[in-house]
Amino acid sequence: LAETAVGVREMSKQLGRTRVHSHIQNVLIVTKARDNRLIKLTRELALYLMLRKTHSGRGMVVYVDAQLKTSRRFDAAGIEREHPEFFVPYPRRRSSSTSSLADDNGNASADLGQLRYWTADMCSRSPHLFDFVVTLGGDGTVLFTSWLFQRIVPPVLPFALGSLGFLTNFDFADHAAVMDSAIDAGIRVNLRMRFTCTVFRAVAAGKGGTRRRAVKKGDTGEILMKNVEKGGWEALESGCAPIYDAGGRGGKDKEIMCFATRPVESFEVLNDLVVDRGPSPYVSQLELFGDEHHLTTVQADGLCVSTPTGSTAYSLSAGGSLVHPEIPAILISPICPHTLSFRPMLLPDSMELRICVPFNSRSTAWASFDGRGRVELRQGDHIKVTASKYPFPTVCADTQSTDWFNAISRTLKWNERERQKSFV
Amino acid sequence: LAETAVGVREMSKQLGRTRVHSHIQNVLIVTKARDNRLIKLTRELALYLMLRKTHSGRGMVVYVDAQLKTSRRFDAAGIEREHPEFFVPYPRRRSSSTSSLADDNGNASADLGQLRYWTADMCSRSPHLFDFVVTLGGDGTVLFTSWLFQRIVPPVLPFALGSLGFLTNFDFADHAAVMDSAIDAGIRVNLRMRFTCTVFRAVAAGKGGTRRRAVKKGDTGEILMKNVEKGGWEALESGCAPIYDAGGRGGKDKEIMCFATRPVESFEVLNDLVVDRGPSPYVSQLELFGDEHHLTTVQADGLCVSTPTGSTAYSLSAGGSLVHPEIPAILISPICPHTLSFRPMLLPDSMELRICVPFNSRSTAWASFDGRGRVELRQGDHIKVTASKYPFPTVCADTQSTDWFNAISRTLKWNERERQKSFV
Amino acid sequence: LAETAVGVREMSKQLGRTRVHSHIQNVLIVTKARDNRLIKLTRELALYLMLRKTHSGRGMVVYVDAQLKTSRRFDAAGIEREHPEFFVPYPRRRSSSTSSLADDNGNASADLGQLRYWTADMCSRSPHLFDFVVTLGGDGTVLFTSWLFQRIVPPVLPFALGSLGFLTNFDFADHAAVMDSAIDAGIRVNLRMRFTCTVFRAVAAGKGGTRRRAVKKGDTGEILMKNVEKGGWEALESGCAPIYDAGGRGGKDKEIMCFATRPVESFEVLNDLVVDRGPSPYVSQLELFGDEHHLTTVQADGLCVSTPTGSTAYSLSAGGSLVHPEIPAILISPICPHTLSFRPMLLPDSMELRICVPFNSRSTAWASFDGRGRVELRQGDHIKVTASKYPFPTVCADTQSTDWFNAISRTLKWNERERQKSFV
Amino acid sequence: LAETAVGVREMSKQLGRTRVHSHIQNVLIVTKARDNRLIKLTRELALYLMLRKTHSGRGMVVYVDAQLKTSRRFDAAGIEREHPEFFVPYPRRRSSSTSSLADDNGNASADLGQLRYWTADMCSRSPHLFDFVVTLGGDGTVLFTSWLFQRIVPPVLPFALGSLGFLTNFDFADHAAVMDSAIDAGIRVNLRMRFTCTVFRAVAAGKGGTRRRAVKKGDTGEILMKNVEKGGWEALESGCAPIYDAGGRGGKDKEIMCFATRPVESFEVLNDLVVDRGPSPYVSQLELFGDEHHLTTVQADGLCVSTPTGSTAYSLSAGGSLVHPEIPAILISPICPHTLSFRPMLLPDSMELRICVPFNSRSTAWASFDGRGRVELRQGDHIKVTASKYPFPTVCADTQSTDWFNAISRTLKWNERERQKSFV
Repeated sequence: LAETAVGVREMSKQLGRTRVHSHIQNVLIVTKARDNRLIKLTRELALYLMLRKTHSGRGMVVYVDAQLKTSRRFDAAGIEREHPEFFVPYPRRRSSSTSSLADDNGNASADLGQLRYWTADMCSRSPHLFDFVVTLGGDGTVLFTSWLFQRIVPPVLPFALGSLGFLTNFDFADHAAVMDSAIDAGIRVNLRMRFTCTVFRAVAAGKGGTRRRAVKKGDTGEILMKNVEKGGWEALESGCAPIYDAGGRGGKDKEIMCFATRPVESFEVLNDLVVDRGPSPYVSQLELFGDEHHLTTVQADGLCVSTPTGSTAYSLSAGGSLVHPEIPAILISPICPHTLSFRPMLLPDSMELRICVPFNSRSTAWASFDGRGRVELRQGDHIKVTASKYPFPTVCADTQSTDWFNAISRTLKWNERERQKSFV
Repeated sequence: LAETAVGVREMSKQLGRTRVHSHIQNVLIVTKARDNRLIKLTRELALYLMLRKTHSGRGMVVYVDAQLKTSRRFDAAGIEREHPEFFVPYPRRRSSSTSSLADDNGNASADLGQLRYWTADMCSRSPHLFDFVVTLGGDGTVLFTSWLFQRIVPPVLPFALGSLGFLTNFDFADHAAVMDSAIDAGIRVNLRMRFTCTVFRAVAAGKGGTRRRAVKKGDTGEILMKNVEKGGWEALESGCAPIYDAGGRGGKDKEIMCFATRPVESFEVLNDLVVDRGPSPYVSQLELFGDEHHLTTVQADGLCVSTPTGSTAYSLSAGGSLVHPEIPAILISPICPHTLSFRPMLLPDSMELRICVPFNSRSTAWASFDGRGRVELRQGDHIKVTASKYPFPTVCADTQSTDWFNAISRTLKWNERERQKSFV
Repeated sequence: LAETAVGVREMSKQLGRTRVHSHIQNVLIVTKARDNRLIKLTRELALYLMLRKTHSGRGMVVYVDAQLKTSRRFDAAGIEREHPEFFVPYPRRRSSSTSSLADDNGNASADLGQLRYWTADMCSRSPHLFDFVVTLGGDGTVLFTSWLFQRIVPPVLPFALGSLGFLTNFDFADHAAVMDSAIDAGIRVNLRMRFTCTVFRAVAAGKGGTRRRAVKKGDTGEILMKNVEKGGWEALESGCAPIYDAGGRGGKDKEIMCFATRPVESFEVLNDLVVDRGPSPYVSQLELFGDEHHLTTVQADGLCVSTPTGSTAYSLSAGGSLVHPEIPAILISPICPHTLSFRPMLLPDSMELRICVPFNSRSTAWASFDGRGRVELRQGDHIKVTASKYPFPTVCADTQSTDWFNAISRTLKWNERERQKSFV
Repeated sequence: LAETAVGVREMSKQLGRTRVHSHIQNVLIVTKARDNRLIKLTRELALYLMLRKTHSGRGMVVYVDAQLKTSRRFDAAGIEREHPEFFVPYPRRRSSSTSSLADDNGNASADLGQLRYWTADMCSRSPHLFDFVVTLGGDGTVLFTSWLFQRIVPPVLPFALGSLGFLTNFDFADHAAVMDSAIDAGIRVNLRMRFTCTVFRAVAAGKGGTRRRAVKKGDTGEILMKNVEKGGWEALESGCAPIYDAGGRGGKDKEIMCFATRPVESFEVLNDLVVDRGPSPYVSQLELFGDEHHLTTVQADGLCVSTPTGSTAYSLSAGGSLVHPEIPAILISPICPHTLSFRPMLLPDSMELRICVPFNSRSTAWASFDGRGRVELRQGDHIKVTASKYPFPTVCADTQSTDWFNAISRTLKWNERERQKSFV
């Protein structure tokens, strides 16, 4: 048994250290389409890539933001004047996914040249179109890329302009050398865990069959959504559990009728899920469950559930530890908690986490996903968080560890030493 | 690649949830041999086990602390009077290790009855003798058991007296039911990671061949033991690297002669390694390396390197997060650091950690291993910490998670709610 | 000089420990007028006080919330039936403030009996009417009382129902004994510091004379409102400083035109002023000044500026220390700061603090005062915080220290010991 | 009453902002007498001061460390060769303290010239000899000066060499200008609070009259030294309380005989008193009392009791807030506490604090005073901490606030901003 454990550890270590040689032919460029400086750099990079010959003997196919089609700064017409060869129809990729692609993009797809335009819809529906994603900008642009690819994500190579961040570990100044190396020598990829966050809403009183029992705790007056019959959360979330009689449960805890829930939205996050009180002046009260355990009641401004990648983001502000991105863990950190003893906690990434707004909460709560998509959670709603099947592959500059240690010193000034020996 | 990652996660989750059915015949009891109350309970438990028939149709063989041989409270003579059958020679275990055992215990070994006496030496040299370890006492007794078994550890079933702790999740009041269930239905074992901590000492100036180059940083005046030639730490720690000329390194960083190191002691820890300033009034200065990276310079009262199991012990006092024992991580927490920004950090358990006392440190440092074995580290010495090949298997009461969540609420009052709704 | 310092310390210690004997004749009762249970208790207390004879030989005059006039639960008509003597006109108080009172309440004032009704307006304009305030409820009711009395505050005796809080140190169960002792033996009063928070708004571009120079820092691009000419903040806040030429300041820092400010609102707070990002997803950027010093730039979810009384409220959630209410200090605690080194700070209560939203801030900020009166701060606005001339006198149960130490143990479970000796 | 409070606040603010004009004639120089570089600078400064004419028309009298008398680097003989005029007898100071001085230094005192030698004994016994103290070195040299002057302290002007510290706010490079300004224009002095720490030892079983009762708590088994009879701590500490019968106290708490205590040593501290477990592997258990209240039981590595001046020293490492030196408070911070809820606390400086090692403590504790004078506290001993009658006057460079804010930014990098806008 112990030997298996050692084996698993070793395998984890190897994973993501292997160099991947892949035929890079189709590159997608993500950037802030409203930043003029970035548009110019995007143009520069696109030209470089379309001219760069690959194994196939041809230049690459480059997808840029569809918003740039009409951009004067990007000047697609100018590119066509200078390089009419880019606009010659290009043999299209033959993969299992292309058949569906043809439907998406119409039959014009076969006639496309080397310069093409991507839309958010293409990213979410046809991720196989792209061998590679290059981002230009800060960590926010990488988060946006994660947002675009809600399922499978192609390897992402993030370029920073000037100062490197946690996710942007390549300097755009070196883009030619970096791209050449990636094309010729392959890349080393780091699979960053993402969370799948599914929002479940309490269903309005159904016709008999959809009601569910909740337990009103006799001693505290809380109404928990904890569903104790066989099936547990599964039954609650699928909305098919039988009706129970609320009377029998003895004098202490009182069962009351409550509603089933149904999933309404799902988000992949790379950094964190934050549930807070939003504009409400009242503190949020949340019930936190891990698998079938009731972990704790959160009385705080909110709760931050973070991946190791996100441990250098909001989680850090909330008092969380720095967690190396290779560790398979879920970080739980309260935001301004109302007890003195609510120390941050790390749970295994194999655990299913649920954050519930109890029925008797004074106010609603608000959830945001990597800082986006603010969603209101009303009484009875909950969010389920699990490790995603779709990790986020980022290209390592050196090794992942070196990248990360450099970033925490550079960006956070972690344990930076003062000149004077010490303050004592 | 992503699918492999999912597979590894799944495998990790399964690991340690499997129920182990094993033929328990030889049980070792660990307790504080100086606590009169515990001696009485040990006697009670030993009698219960020797009477309990197993699959073999005989009672169990019980090993108690050799210190109890002459204890009036334990009263071995009284047991012999009442149960002479326990002292009839018992067929000895035939395992690969018994041949060496015969040497250890003399040829009398073959004639032993059901009541036998263990020594620390037997535990470290012949762990295969024991199918099972039962501890009576607090968490300290479990740590002592880890100390006894520096290599392979039999499954450990820890009984608490009264209040349960983090490692003692069974109440002695239930010992009969618990033991019966273990014998009949098997046990669920949780493999807790231990660290192997190896102390390397700087070797006094050898005859030419053993000197090693160090680098005196031009800008900070630190002398790092970082060995940059091929081989790195490996060469330094094996003590076989060639001599280098100290002259050539340019004006900035000055190479100086330094010493090789050699391993002198090794400890398995279940909770933590703590390096601190000991009785010295001066703060300790330590250099921390992860694999080949220089992570940081520690100016603090000390440093706590903890397993997830130890996250509820000293690490917590030092400000570390609560970390579920299934997460494969190393916790690094500074003790009273001299910078405002030295946030605790978690590293993957596949990383090799080294804590060095630099040659120019004002004072020495002291290391303790699970609170024991205080060792002085002089200038040039270092400790290497790696995940151990010998994890510590503890028996789960329920599931590991339930045990752990109960313990942090009960023992730490983690996020316990006050009666008044909140303090705002 | 040193002796004077000792003298000041001694005087501070005496202050608020003296027992005040005062003729209590007019008592105001504050409670939540919508809580049925509290209305019943208010009725009970009012009856007790109107019947209780004072030095004057008559029962007391009791003011209850004007909302109770028509409350069926309070049943003023029933009181009149049972105790018509309470409604006989009562000699009115002759104080300097009564003349203005006559105007407020009309000439009927002279004819009032013992049961009267207070309005928020009376509290803010004629605090001298009341010798004493009694509150029924939790800490929130005491904060509401502070809100009612924006200038002079009569001594406040706070009754809790059930569990005592930080500000509610008397149990309503003992109300008869407590009131009798206050009337007969006098009270010991604790003067709790309040802050005066004045909101200054940037004035839209005036006709020449109201413009002010700001400095755009060359290196960081921040626009500070720091006004460096003689007069400094005073000039900025009074809006009468001369115009300056923006050209001359050399290449580095660029002076730009900015606006004068004018005070628009002022709030007295007993616990804290919190400035945060409100519903904005962006972090707030605030500039913090102490007297004429620029203390720091706050990049955080917000900032909590708390009195020592408030150190057990939101400040504690934000990581602040527990501060004894007698210490003359201002507590500054960041809310989820974006640096690792933003440790909370305490400043002398003699310091003038200013929290500014810089002109180049991405978003506005929101201020709340003891959790009330949410005010939006736009770019260029600031809040000035000073120790108030109008402290909040609360009646001590025992000594202030005993009350406080009991409260932090009881309510916060501060350093409460676990049963097991320790977690190590 | 409120007006008096405002008056006290105003007076506090004025105190220490006044500029003191004093006739500076006798200057003492403190430095590390073993640091060669500092000896040279001491010589340079001494020459400058002896040549500098004051109001009296003569150069100043300079006292240097008696260890320099024979130092080759200081070269007193060389000074005498170059400046024989410094060694002409100098009119001696006529103050009430000089008569006793004559006894201290022998009758040669009357004949002394401008260059004299100080000893630790002179500092503690005749502080009036010196108008002014100049320190050369780091914060440690200033702490050493506080150690030298256990009673009255002359104004201290601290010069740093290179980087300024918290206490060393003048750069030696500017020493001529700074000294001239002090002599001609006077100085602005900041009275920093010190603590008087008195060590009380349990007295071995006296002859009847000195025994004292303690209370053994029935529920916890702790033995408190809390002395409940009239007189309380005063009686215990003076050692003159009557004997009590131990029998009567009912079944729960058991009174036992315990010992009186007597004061054995007293220390003035400028930064902090730290009580810790010293070399003991066991955690220390301390009982903390404020005036007559039992505040809490400390189960931790130790306890730091700090002045506001010390808030930037060890207290900060232990997690304390930054406290402006003008705030009259005592900072209590646990060192690695064994509970999650032991938040640091600030108490008024008028409170008497006592830290007791209970009779049933497993181990002794160790106290250090500004990092010096390590004293073992055995079971039954305690330390009493009060604000000292002898504050430590330091010369302000600008205003005290400016000095302090600059120091926390410079030395601690408090809330220093990273270049990238934020880490989110």
